[in-house]
Amino acid sequence: MSEAPVHDDRDDLRAWMEGIAARTEAALDRALPPASQAPGRLHEAMRYAVLGGGKRVRPLLCHAAGAVFGAPVDALDAAAAAIEMIHVYSLVHDDMPAMDDDAMRRGKPTVHVAYDEATALLVGDALQSQAFETIAACPVPATQQVALTRELAHASGSLGMAGGQTIDLMSVGVALDRPALETMHRMKTGALLRAAVRLGALCAPQAPDAAAREALDAYAAAVGLAFQVVDDILDVTVDSATLGKTAGKDAENDKPTYVSLLGLDEARALARALRADAGRALEPFGARARRLRELADFVVERAY
Amino acid sequence: MSEAPVHDDRDDLRAWMEGIAARTEAALDRALPPASQAPGRLHEAMRYAVLGGGKRVRPLLCHAAGAVFGAPVDALDAAAAAIEMIHVYSLVHDDMPAMDDDAMRRGKPTVHVAYDEATALLVGDALQSQAFETIAACPVPATQQVALTRELAHASGSLGMAGGQTIDLMSVGVALDRPALETMHRMKTGALLRAAVRLGALCAPQAPDAAAREALDAYAAAVGLAFQVVDDILDVTVDSATLGKTAGKDAENDKPTYVSLLGLDEARALARALRADAGRALEPFGARARRLRELADFVVERAY
Repeated sequence: MSEAPVHDDRDDLRAWMEGIAARTEAALDRALPPASQAPGRLHEAMRYAVLGGGKRVRPLLCHAAGAVFGAPVDALDAAAAAIEMIHVYSLVHDDMPAMDDDAMRRGKPTVHVAYDEATALLVGDALQSQAFETIAACPVPATQQVALTRELAHASGSLGMAGGQTIDLMSVGVALDRPALETMHRMKTGALLRAAVRLGALCAPQAPDAAAREALDAYAAAVGLAFQVVDDILDVTVDSATLGKTAGKDAENDKPTYVSLLGLDEARALARALRADAGRALEPFGARARRLRELADFVVERAY
Repeated sequence: MSEAPVHDDRDDLRAWMEGIAARTEAALDRALPPASQAPGRLHEAMRYAVLGGGKRVRPLLCHAAGAVFGAPVDALDAAAAAIEMIHVYSLVHDDMPAMDDDAMRRGKPTVHVAYDEATALLVGDALQSQAFETIAACPVPATQQVALTRELAHASGSLGMAGGQTIDLMSVGVALDRPALETMHRMKTGALLRAAVRLGALCAPQAPDAAAREALDAYAAAVGLAFQVVDDILDVTVDSATLGKTAGKDAENDKPTYVSLLGLDEARALARALRADAGRALEPFGARARRLRELADFVVERAY
């Protein structure tokens, strides 16, 4: 009889996710200047914001997409670190009093609370620069580095994440309909999640063809929207301690959400439908897309 | 007898500067999304911040350095626009209440006053992304695009501009000595001025050799410091209307300056000495460095 422990797919996925999270943490640690380097306060605050927290969803998507096309792991580490820095900078700025005014993030005080507002502003600014410096050092040929830069810059800018945040701010107390809500989320969170998938593919020695790019984008669109729908569900069903951030903020701020628009049951049904869409988009890739498929499940089933 | 108008060197320099400013304005206008594109409020505010103002010192330095090495002008346009976007984003964030709390810039209300704080935060964020997207579209080979990205990211980040701003904030009410003041300015404004010169050279078909790079850096260091010394002089000698920003802010905020440290006469002497340093650094380049030489003169002699 075998003494080997029983493994199911969930254990395997968990181990893979923990492995990517650990790689990402190490890549971020390497990419960020040490707190001992001047200006120490800024570097300490950058590290406080970036290290030791977060679900690392974007790095996971980046590595999973890279695996489909045989991208080298050290290139994916750099791309994943860069995307995560962009994501964290947006959280740091979004939490500031001028925007969402949030005191808690990833289970600890937000940067402007732990330090001060000026430092939070500069932490976000410097993390964005550091993300592009990290991409410029990604170990792939220069043409790919440029493609990575272009994609990451476009996804974070006024036609992507920053634009979505603007629409979000302008929508407080406004009765957005579902298409308008979808546009906002497609930009605010969807653009960077899509970039995470695209960057993974762009790290591969051979660029994916048009059909593969379209399939990846369809996957990313479904997962991105599912992520947001689940975020809205968790915001009203889970407590702040579990979320690691302030729960119930959207309702309190009178922000439109999928739950306020569709109700809880229909929002849950939408998340499941989006997971099915994501799975269908991956069919052309077969078994190579295993991790992407599992991540779509994880995004919909997550409890925090 | 000739009917030709009398030209002196100053007229010629002025015409060249106006030409570069016009090219830069056009390049910025092309690179920024139109205000008619959603989110319109963000794009309008980005254009408000960037277009129609400023001395365009960094674009001038970029074009002047590019001219030394025969860089193509359309590449310099993209590089200059990217650097100016980084500079403007830093002004927009620096003017916010959490930092310098300034209401006037380039002769008009600052972005957070004309719009609101959240918009100013996002304008700065989106301009930084747009700068890197602009570099990724600069018409030079990919290896040069990556070199431009690396230089611009490094100069704007925690070891450059953003780091210098952190030191500046921490130095309010602190008696900085001259070496500490110099470190702060070398990072806060010097790093991006040096990047402007380096980016111009990096647009050339052939990368400048180590000696040329060193000479350019020595020039940029002298001009960067001179720029700051003159800024400090103008802050106490010129009124707000002429400056286009609030005069006397540094003294009011109890910030150390070259004037508070050295007195007005010695600060003026230092600016002249730095101009001479800049000129000496350019000697190896001969006549090709004419515009760089003239810009050093302009930086020291400017009245606003």
